[in-house]
Amino acid sequence: MADYYLDDFEPGHTYTSPTQTISEEEALAFARRYDPQYFHLDPVAARDSVFGGIVLGGFQTAALAWTLVLRTGMFDKSAIAGIGLDELRWHKPVRPGESLRCEFTLLDARPSRTQRDRGVARFRYEVKNQRDEIVLSLVMIQMLRRRPSGG
Amino acid sequence: MADYYLDDFEPGHTYTSPTQTISEEEALAFARRYDPQYFHLDPVAARDSVFGGIVLGGFQTAALAWTLVLRTGMFDKSAIAGIGLDELRWHKPVRPGESLRCEFTLLDARPSRTQRDRGVARFRYEVKNQRDEIVLSLVMIQMLRRRPSGG
Repeated sequence: MADYYLDDFEPGHTYTSPTQTISEEEALAFARRYDPQYFHLDPVAARDSVFGGIVLGGFQTAALAWTLVLRTGMFDKSAIAGIGLDELRWHKPVRPGESLRCEFTLLDARPSRTQRDRGVARFRYEVKNQRDEIVLSLVMIQMLRRRPSGG
Repeated sequence: MADYYLDDFEPGHTYTSPTQTISEEEALAFARRYDPQYFHLDPVAARDSVFGGIVLGGFQTAALAWTLVLRTGMFDKSAIAGIGLDELRWHKPVRPGESLRCEFTLLDARPSRTQRDRGVARFRYEVKNQRDEIVLSLVMIQMLRRRPSGG
């Protein structure tokens, strides 16, 4: 997978990341630093939230989506920079102990007109838990490197 | 600020978060766990990236936007859950040592028709650096608690 470039992703094809189980320690560490709300930090108080217990912060789930995708190795050579995210939705809460994977589908890839070594790709991400429920979806827009013409 | 509810935010008004300087330690800690790419981790190799040096991971900047907004205290009582993000764009790289703040403007607030204690608010976020350059913008969609009728 280490030699994937913009040209190697197939429009409409769905790729699947590895699976990761999220520990309570990891949920709490993120919440303390980035999202210190009681329903991310305090198991007792969180019972009275709409979630009924501790859940991961939404920005942690979003970051994990990318972490999981990165683990495929398909962006080791190709990633230049992130451009943006569209239509991110948190569909279901994620609780410590749950296992997540990300299924990502290439929507389109447009080579740059001015810089021949790169282009813009849009992927739809669906992060699923161990019950195959979609917990997060988004559209990732990235600048990716094209396959070197000599390669 | 601790008693802010959906009804208390004014459409079109811009609120400003505190400012935070991002240390290299914090950038590296996030990158190691969530975004282990060389231009987030390796100061020497990062010189050859489009960034010319280490930059924060895009999902860290996004998480920090929310961290900064949360520090206003305006969501301590009002936040129920995040719904989503639209039109997130990373406009400029953020380097360790830079100082960020988030200016956020209420776009609209719609009380729920079925649940009288809550509603949906959309805010436009602009994260700015110490040179007043926009480094990140997004639209945050949240479910917020309405002011209790007795309060």
